[in-house]
Amino acid sequence: MTAWSANDLKVGQMLARQLFETLERESADPPGVTRKAYGEGERMAYDLMIKETESFGVEVEHDAAGNLFITLPGEDRSRQILVASHIDTVGHGGNYDGAAGVIAGVCAQAIFHAAGRKPPFDLTVLIMRAEESCWFPYSYLGSKSALGILDPSVVDSLRRSDTGRTLAEHMREEGFDPEGVKKGASLIKRDRVVAYFEAHIEQAPVLVNENIPVGIVTGIRGSFRYRTAKCLGAYAHSGAMPREYRKDASAATGELIYRMDGLWEDILAEGRDLTVTFGEVMTNPEQHGFSKVAGEMHICVDVRSQERETLDIVRERLQGLAEEIGAKRNVRFELGELTGSTPAIMAKPLQEMLTSAAEATGTSYKVMASGAGHDAATFANEGIPTAMIFIRNENGSHNPDEAMDMEDFDHALAVLAEALATSPDQWPQPTTS
Amino acid sequence: MTAWSANDLKVGQMLARQLFETLERESADPPGVTRKAYGEGERMAYDLMIKETESFGVEVEHDAAGNLFITLPGEDRSRQILVASHIDTVGHGGNYDGAAGVIAGVCAQAIFHAAGRKPPFDLTVLIMRAEESCWFPYSYLGSKSALGILDPSVVDSLRRSDTGRTLAEHMREEGFDPEGVKKGASLIKRDRVVAYFEAHIEQAPVLVNENIPVGIVTGIRGSFRYRTAKCLGAYAHSGAMPREYRKDASAATGELIYRMDGLWEDILAEGRDLTVTFGEVMTNPEQHGFSKVAGEMHICVDVRSQERETLDIVRERLQGLAEEIGAKRNVRFELGELTGSTPAIMAKPLQEMLTSAAEATGTSYKVMASGAGHDAATFANEGIPTAMIFIRNENGSHNPDEAMDMEDFDHALAVLAEALATSPDQWPQPTTS
Repeated sequence: MTAWSANDLKVGQMLARQLFETLERESADPPGVTRKAYGEGERMAYDLMIKETESFGVEVEHDAAGNLFITLPGEDRSRQILVASHIDTVGHGGNYDGAAGVIAGVCAQAIFHAAGRKPPFDLTVLIMRAEESCWFPYSYLGSKSALGILDPSVVDSLRRSDTGRTLAEHMREEGFDPEGVKKGASLIKRDRVVAYFEAHIEQAPVLVNENIPVGIVTGIRGSFRYRTAKCLGAYAHSGAMPREYRKDASAATGELIYRMDGLWEDILAEGRDLTVTFGEVMTNPEQHGFSKVAGEMHICVDVRSQERETLDIVRERLQGLAEEIGAKRNVRFELGELTGSTPAIMAKPLQEMLTSAAEATGTSYKVMASGAGHDAATFANEGIPTAMIFIRNENGSHNPDEAMDMEDFDHALAVLAEALATSPDQWPQPTTS
Repeated sequence: MTAWSANDLKVGQMLARQLFETLERESADPPGVTRKAYGEGERMAYDLMIKETESFGVEVEHDAAGNLFITLPGEDRSRQILVASHIDTVGHGGNYDGAAGVIAGVCAQAIFHAAGRKPPFDLTVLIMRAEESCWFPYSYLGSKSALGILDPSVVDSLRRSDTGRTLAEHMREEGFDPEGVKKGASLIKRDRVVAYFEAHIEQAPVLVNENIPVGIVTGIRGSFRYRTAKCLGAYAHSGAMPREYRKDASAATGELIYRMDGLWEDILAEGRDLTVTFGEVMTNPEQHGFSKVAGEMHICVDVRSQERETLDIVRERLQGLAEEIGAKRNVRFELGELTGSTPAIMAKPLQEMLTSAAEATGTSYKVMASGAGHDAATFANEGIPTAMIFIRNENGSHNPDEAMDMEDFDHALAVLAEALATSPDQWPQPTTS
């Protein structure tokens, strides 16, 4: 016995196709799409979701930070289910990262509406801002502001990478209220929230390789990052400067990358969870040259693990290596500001609701960890029962070649809609904060 | 007994100060100076040298490529001494690299003129084009075109790095004759040339560390370069893409840099001569991100040695490492076009003339190799008797902090002027080609 007929689900499936196509067309920026946080593409996407849900009889509100709450009233209005994600993308990203979760929520509302049924509790699609921290170098801006827990100091200090203007300026430009954000304004009443769901494309090829359409997530990796690290040496003539006098920033950075890669291998061999990525490595194009020893290097390093302890170990080793290599090679590593996030655990009862829904709908699924960070981590770490659904996706994310099969989206939507139809007494009790 | 009185030399010293100051002021581009090959700054410098030598009674000609010949007629006009260098700089370079050699020549002419003496043979200051191959990616463009041996095909194929326009277009724009260059037009009659001298700042800190003002050069390192090498991997999510599936261009490049550095150390330990420099190492700013595995890397590698065999060994090892690391890490290195130059030996008789001149003038000097390439290498490898004088210089070259002490320049000028006054019968016989 499933909650929905094939025709009920069909309504959601058709809407999903239309929404993905419109989003892609309206934010095309070849290769791929660009929807900058607090930028034109993100604004277009918000407007699209408001327009498409109008006919469902929803209540629409945005909070001080511009996070949007589209609420389909439930049978029991004293409680709330959040189905949330973000709608921004990295520059020249794919169309599915973030958007799939938002569209899954909107389509779930469409299914309830088309079937003439109310959800058990208020069903709120929460579309959060600025999840892609390439725009504002900070993790989980949207979910933290939605929960009223964003560090007030960052509102005036964070600057968008392309414009150099502050988060506050960008919020104001879009009609929002940075002063309210600083004061912790939030539309979320924690004692009302019974569950937070987030559907997301898988950003690794695990589901692809194992030929499974849907993943049910157990936990989310935390991270630490040095996004503005530098290696400072001295420019010199490439042919004339003897080895012993060099202060070669590229040789030193090469060694740091190589030895961190070795450390990664060692840590995995210990059975720990870890990723190490040097995503940006650049000599200074204003100053470098093929016939110059590099005097400067920009470096971004991103390290992730499900285990806090592993993050601590690797951070210390990285600092130690930077010092050791710097001393040996007569350069100075300046690691710069440290940012990051805490690993998060998904709520067992919600995981069980999702696995039951998958079984009821005949959807094959894999129970797995999330390698990437998601806004869900913020909610989980604030004690709100949280769960995630992964959707099989080729070619990773954050690139123009993201490829989610719409039939896999349909599977995830079926599981989500089934779970959302769970009768009121089977939901976890909300936390009281 | 020296050839010149202190007052004779004073004329050259004063002119030198004035020329360096004018050059620096007129080509300032903070930090440092920029005199692009076939660009505005280079043109200004050429005009300045023509204007300053007018009163000496010189003959001025430029060849098809725009190399300039300023000739002070000699006692014996059947033969010719060249004192040569270039006047272009890298972007934001220093004021002395190249210019010191040109100014030394002009000031030597000024000394002859002021003393009312003719040089033993025609004394030609040759100012060559485009020595800094950051503008046109090719070694010794000026000296090869001056000798009529420039590969004709490059005239239309080389493009200036900033404008993207061809060498031929730039030559034509400056009023020169690219078709003549292709045909091998040259103003140099090899059977007339008894000597080629080039003064140049030292680009390493050897003279600084040993506290010696002047170097007399034994030979010039040759090189090979891959200026447009790439590492091609695949962009992926930094936190989600497992190690075993990655095609990480920055990890692979880090390993290549690190292992080439190890190779360098090993080769030096064998007693061979070598430098290895990765001057440009860049993820793609249009595509990279701190949360993306790097899918692409731009790499410039420059390798130099006085020994042909060492260059061959290292080139093979580099190719082997690129293949090995590429296969292991599931990326592809595309090394791209190979360019380079041949090591060159300086003429013994001219070296001896310079050491005699240094001793006569009481100038302390060091006999040493040149780590950097110079146009002198082209002349030497064409069988023309060639010598170089190094001038002590702090902070290397190709950077805004080049610092040549004017008193060290005076020492080099004194040695050069002394050698140029050598009586006609003591010069080497010119080659007949």
